[in-house]
Amino acid sequence: MPKKRIIILGGGFAGINTAMQLERRIRRRDDVEIILISRENYLVFQPMLPEVISGNIGILDTVTPLRRLAPKTQIYIRDVDKVDVAQQTVTLAPAFETTSTQLHYDHLVIALGNVTDFRNIPGLHDHAFPFKNLLHALRLRDHLIRVLSEAANTTDPVLRNELLTFVIGGGGFSGVEVCAELNDFVRDCARRYFNIREEEIRVILVHAGDRILNHEMPESLGNYAQKLLQKRGVEFIFDMMIKTATPDFAVLGDGQRIPTKTLVSSVPSSPNPLVLDIDVPHDHGRIKSDLKMQVEGFSNVWALGDCALIPHPKTDGFCPPTAQFAIREAKTCATNIVACLDNRPQSDFAFTELGKMAALGHRRAIIQMFGKINVHGFVAWLIWRMAYWTKLPGIDRKIKVGISWFTDILCGRELVQTGMDNPASFTEAHFESGEMVVHQNEPAARFSIVVNGKASILETNPDGTEKVVGELGAGDCIGVDGLLDKTTPEYSVQCTEKMNIVSYERKELEPLLILPDIKQSLEKLRRKQGN
Amino acid sequence: MPKKRIIILGGGFAGINTAMQLERRIRRRDDVEIILISRENYLVFQPMLPEVISGNIGILDTVTPLRRLAPKTQIYIRDVDKVDVAQQTVTLAPAFETTSTQLHYDHLVIALGNVTDFRNIPGLHDHAFPFKNLLHALRLRDHLIRVLSEAANTTDPVLRNELLTFVIGGGGFSGVEVCAELNDFVRDCARRYFNIREEEIRVILVHAGDRILNHEMPESLGNYAQKLLQKRGVEFIFDMMIKTATPDFAVLGDGQRIPTKTLVSSVPSSPNPLVLDIDVPHDHGRIKSDLKMQVEGFSNVWALGDCALIPHPKTDGFCPPTAQFAIREAKTCATNIVACLDNRPQSDFAFTELGKMAALGHRRAIIQMFGKINVHGFVAWLIWRMAYWTKLPGIDRKIKVGISWFTDILCGRELVQTGMDNPASFTEAHFESGEMVVHQNEPAARFSIVVNGKASILETNPDGTEKVVGELGAGDCIGVDGLLDKTTPEYSVQCTEKMNIVSYERKELEPLLILPDIKQSLEKLRRKQGN
Repeated sequence: MPKKRIIILGGGFAGINTAMQLERRIRRRDDVEIILISRENYLVFQPMLPEVISGNIGILDTVTPLRRLAPKTQIYIRDVDKVDVAQQTVTLAPAFETTSTQLHYDHLVIALGNVTDFRNIPGLHDHAFPFKNLLHALRLRDHLIRVLSEAANTTDPVLRNELLTFVIGGGGFSGVEVCAELNDFVRDCARRYFNIREEEIRVILVHAGDRILNHEMPESLGNYAQKLLQKRGVEFIFDMMIKTATPDFAVLGDGQRIPTKTLVSSVPSSPNPLVLDIDVPHDHGRIKSDLKMQVEGFSNVWALGDCALIPHPKTDGFCPPTAQFAIREAKTCATNIVACLDNRPQSDFAFTELGKMAALGHRRAIIQMFGKINVHGFVAWLIWRMAYWTKLPGIDRKIKVGISWFTDILCGRELVQTGMDNPASFTEAHFESGEMVVHQNEPAARFSIVVNGKASILETNPDGTEKVVGELGAGDCIGVDGLLDKTTPEYSVQCTEKMNIVSYERKELEPLLILPDIKQSLEKLRRKQGN
Repeated sequence: MPKKRIIILGGGFAGINTAMQLERRIRRRDDVEIILISRENYLVFQPMLPEVISGNIGILDTVTPLRRLAPKTQIYIRDVDKVDVAQQTVTLAPAFETTSTQLHYDHLVIALGNVTDFRNIPGLHDHAFPFKNLLHALRLRDHLIRVLSEAANTTDPVLRNELLTFVIGGGGFSGVEVCAELNDFVRDCARRYFNIREEEIRVILVHAGDRILNHEMPESLGNYAQKLLQKRGVEFIFDMMIKTATPDFAVLGDGQRIPTKTLVSSVPSSPNPLVLDIDVPHDHGRIKSDLKMQVEGFSNVWALGDCALIPHPKTDGFCPPTAQFAIREAKTCATNIVACLDNRPQSDFAFTELGKMAALGHRRAIIQMFGKINVHGFVAWLIWRMAYWTKLPGIDRKIKVGISWFTDILCGRELVQTGMDNPASFTEAHFESGEMVVHQNEPAARFSIVVNGKASILETNPDGTEKVVGELGAGDCIGVDGLLDKTTPEYSVQCTEKMNIVSYERKELEPLLILPDIKQSLEKLRRKQGN
């Protein structure tokens, strides 16, 4: 008899806990197999990720390999191309194979979580740092070291200000925690640079609410956190959202432009886009599940975690997208799948939240327990650390992280870049009116195509003034001559109407010039545009 | 009076030690400034880098931030674009600025080290992993986890064999140490995968000499190392070099093809190419310095470390390219520069090597001390660890690394990928005759241009046999239809004469189709080629 196959999509708290709970429940059975598909091979301990920025904990201490958590589960580290609930198949993108992998399932568990979704804010995708996984944290860390080191060397006051201004969008848990760690890190590091003064550093948190953590924490704790961060130099802008991002600015809802090279955005997040492509009932982009974790209208499709809309067992609302809930939902889901396999009755989800915590750096935290007890300061930080420490899987990891926390009390921060902040060769960029797109004689000029918006081509007169010598709009190129002749631009380009461009590093497109037809059409383009 | 400016190029042992020694000698002077330019912001502890693969030590423990070592030096993390010894200037590539940075110097120290130089071996640049810096180590680690995890899932025996075969080129210090750690790591990890058997794993070291470490170590120690690695499952191929690398094979000098997805090459290395562009006397690509570290014909240009050819103080030969020598050379160089500034007489370099060591994983090492005392095994390993531990800069780092070494005795290896092994969107590839370049219905097919060599386009007949329907040569494209219509190929492409291609991810080139001229010329190309 063929084995019953359970496929779990997603390796976050919901997905991996479903696998772990299933492993426990089918330990002595060989008629069931579990497959888990995830983009990353590790589970992120999200609340500790901000500490990676400061290097307070070892980089690998915040994450646990999935294989270790669920050793009996077959794990694919792949992208999911397609889910077909009618045919009961999941198609995976190929890795080393040359064909896609199609897997049939008997039960499907959808636990794809949510993603940072920058689609609706122009420029955010191109110019803001997301903060969801280990790579994001490492990239941000590298970038911070890079801007500090460049600020220490530059003599240009405008650039120096841009480099030393850090903007964080969002005042929820993630935004506040990232802000606290980032602020501590850059101020600490700046002391290592003999030519940066701490007063030059600005860390600005922009939040849509009228105080930080307004949705997450009671006012007293929110205010405590706010005052603490203020004392450490963080500036707050409330009742405001980030409207646009460009290479040089964070643009706020009221049009104010904050010059910065570092914009971190913890908002907005939305369910994994793949979720919408699955043919099951949705509500606001999330999958409609019931208290059994079963998807409406299906007996063998289950959804849980941040991508699912599950009625709250105690209130009229829905389960919040937190790890606490995901872990308990996974337990219910695993129980019910096994019940389903055995034709036993299923059970309902029942859970009340234990508490909420936020770490504020420098051994301070805030906690609300059981919806009523508020704790803040050093004691809260100790509870925070202990709570997460106990959740670390495996005794060896507990020892490692424990010791690493202890040694950090003795040792300072490290300024090592891992070298992952390499500028991408293919990029998209957004510019607002008035911004420079290309500077005259810019050695690193790229080949770009205007997707929409407008810009002027400027040349410098002998007297130093500038004159407009051409206009660029959608479908025009910038830097054709540079690509063809490897010259630096003798003109500059200034955005006149907000625009988006796609842009390539020259040396990456140069091989295309091997093709005579392509080369000719680029030469034609140059004649047509005259740039 | 303007300050005298000393510019140091390179942040390896030679460069950073020159800066440190200079700082010490000019501590109370404000008439001298030191600038150091490096591509990375850290000094790599090369001998420990292989341990990053296995995660035996914390990722950041192998490297030390330059700023910490030389706090009074102004450090630029930049590429050097140009060195003009006539004008006494160094030009840096721009970082966040839009213009290059030009710096004038009074004294120039060239310590650019050497690089892994894959230029003369076809395909090595495209398909082999170099192993010089932290990023290389992290990338290789990620890749190893990836191939193991894919091998665990695939049912294709050919692919499985490729994924589980690991080839290391070069049997010098670096090659042997990487081989030892890689072998330990993959065999250890394989035990976590319930569907990989250890016997399926092959680790092969290919070496030009007739035994490992033939240039570096006496025969008895070399043989000890060899037997030890053999016992742990490493296979050796001697008197042989790697001739070519392709996506699926390492091709040896005798034409033998070893199917593998993992080729690590520690050879060949040659001086940094920038060194050749500097207008000073060269010999075999290295800069001719004397025992004062002064470059022939210059009173204010100094060269040391791996990029310089310095007469050996005791023998007829030249100083070897090792950290031991670099550190002592830096001391002489710093002394002489300060003597030069003060018009005092300069002194000559004098040093005899202390010893040579190689770590073999699993707490085993080999050491030759003072050219005569040979030690191997656990005691050698202890000496090795202690020797490097004492060289770690700073008491806090000593504590951290010490504790991390201690906890590793208690804890197992970690299988966390940092996520840096993302396939590049723009790649170059080399194929040997008979290899498949594109497979029919390959979903991830790319757009490629044949740079040189030949290939056949094959279509499948109704009876399953294949027929040649076209030939491709230099300047032809593969996958035009895929780029234009987003289809998967209905043909396959097989290399018939060794060829090089450049290749783009489709979605990266798609924005170019916004340009009607480019689109038309691609359509023309398609008609012409009929694919």
